[in-house]
Amino acid sequence: MPLASSSDMGTPMTTAEFLGFTAQADGTHALNMTNQLLGGGSGSLFGGVGLAAGLIALEAATGQAPVYMTCQFASTISPPDELVIHTEVLAKGRTACQGRLTGTSGDRTILALLGATGDRREDLRGIWRTMPEVAPPEACEPLQRTQDSDSFHDHAEVRMARGMFGFAPEDAIGRGTASGDATTLFWTRMPNVSHDAAALALMADYLPSAVGNSLDKRTYCSSLDNTIRFVEPVEPDASSEWLLCESHIEFIAAGFATSQGFIWRRDGTLLASANQSMTAAIPRE
Amino acid sequence: MPLASSSDMGTPMTTAEFLGFTAQADGTHALNMTNQLLGGGSGSLFGGVGLAAGLIALEAATGQAPVYMTCQFASTISPPDELVIHTEVLAKGRTACQGRLTGTSGDRTILALLGATGDRREDLRGIWRTMPEVAPPEACEPLQRTQDSDSFHDHAEVRMARGMFGFAPEDAIGRGTASGDATTLFWTRMPNVSHDAAALALMADYLPSAVGNSLDKRTYCSSLDNTIRFVEPVEPDASSEWLLCESHIEFIAAGFATSQGFIWRRDGTLLASANQSMTAAIPRE
Repeated sequence: MPLASSSDMGTPMTTAEFLGFTAQADGTHALNMTNQLLGGGSGSLFGGVGLAAGLIALEAATGQAPVYMTCQFASTISPPDELVIHTEVLAKGRTACQGRLTGTSGDRTILALLGATGDRREDLRGIWRTMPEVAPPEACEPLQRTQDSDSFHDHAEVRMARGMFGFAPEDAIGRGTASGDATTLFWTRMPNVSHDAAALALMADYLPSAVGNSLDKRTYCSSLDNTIRFVEPVEPDASSEWLLCESHIEFIAAGFATSQGFIWRRDGTLLASANQSMTAAIPRE
Repeated sequence: MPLASSSDMGTPMTTAEFLGFTAQADGTHALNMTNQLLGGGSGSLFGGVGLAAGLIALEAATGQAPVYMTCQFASTISPPDELVIHTEVLAKGRTACQGRLTGTSGDRTILALLGATGDRREDLRGIWRTMPEVAPPEACEPLQRTQDSDSFHDHAEVRMARGMFGFAPEDAIGRGTASGDATTLFWTRMPNVSHDAAALALMADYLPSAVGNSLDKRTYCSSLDNTIRFVEPVEPDASSEWLLCESHIEFIAAGFATSQGFIWRRDGTLLASANQSMTAAIPRE
């Protein structure tokens, strides 16, 4: 499905439509990386795409809303590769299902995922995090990244509200400045894409940008995994309103780093928490 | 391997020895649930045992220290079942490996795991959490749980330093009282077991005990997963010194809950972070 079609229609795409991720006759789902627009800037697949695809496939298999999912990046793809997601429901229940998914390209294993979906009665409720105090997105400078090639980043707007966006080149306008600690806050949105559960998974892959902020230096990170946990079923936001990403680096040691964060609606509603482990090194140039 | 043998010898067991988890001729690892001592109190397998077994098996396959691992509990076993862990290395590198593991019992899939190991140069270092102020374990009352049957809990000592241990019966001595927020602190140790990476995985499965504290009521929780991320390779502690568990409940909604926490050495060294999603309900009695 062409990526640019929906803005012509004036209605936002679902994330599945944005990814061109479609059910196949054999029960799998597939997307074609026809160009760099699903890439992370280096030309290979943006990690959040894998997690988003897994969420869509498991929800399709179980008919229940996503509760959590973790995606391990064993390898990657680049244009013109196809990614096929195979879904295996390990435990199927009326109130919860658990699944294992595998992403392949030809005979290569690219992604390995685990996750759960659910439809349960709410006996108990409590949310103990509160949204940090933050300037509104209108008061924050847009991040402008000039890149050699098209990438996923062309679809997502970012505005730093606290700290530095560690993925952006040092001369990028709106990159921000290091906060002096391990916490960043930034607004993000995907215009023309409905902010559904899978869209949050795409955005969650921006949380490790806080590594560069924490060290106040450009850092080369390569994701091992990307994990997201939803507070409750996500009501898709067709207006693509700004979401706040709150990111904390827990530790960087022994060549690896761990980020932990939260995604908030602008009105202060907590939508999800997210964690990621990655390699961390000084770029060799 | 008999569980009680090592204290006779005066040297602590490794966690693999404690679990009786041994390499098989076909490349798998296996343990036999010969009695309730690997159970969680209800008679079925204590979830942390699955994560610990996965860590041991992947480290054996790659020869590298664990970086992170996530274990999904698709089903369970009870005595006299055998658990067999099958390890598949998806990406094998000199500095990092990624694996997928499956736990089976006969023809049933019990556990599905993903994880990574590594041996990398440390270019960069930063640890942004600090250990909370806490009373020493000697000043905290031992948790005494009188249970109908033997369980894993007979091997792990717990002393609450803040809040309530939500897994313990309401009349348990040393259970503590609810903190009024979503955070608990407790000391734990496994006498006669060396505190290695797999032992931390066992202890990490106590972190969701903060659910009961957060709501100040007994809550029925069933784990979906258990995820641990290590700061750096864990130096096994043969003296089984007390470890501090810091647990935060992020949210309870729509019938599910998420816990997030940290495991500290007594001297303030951060060893690991851990996350878990679970079902959460009022016990139906």
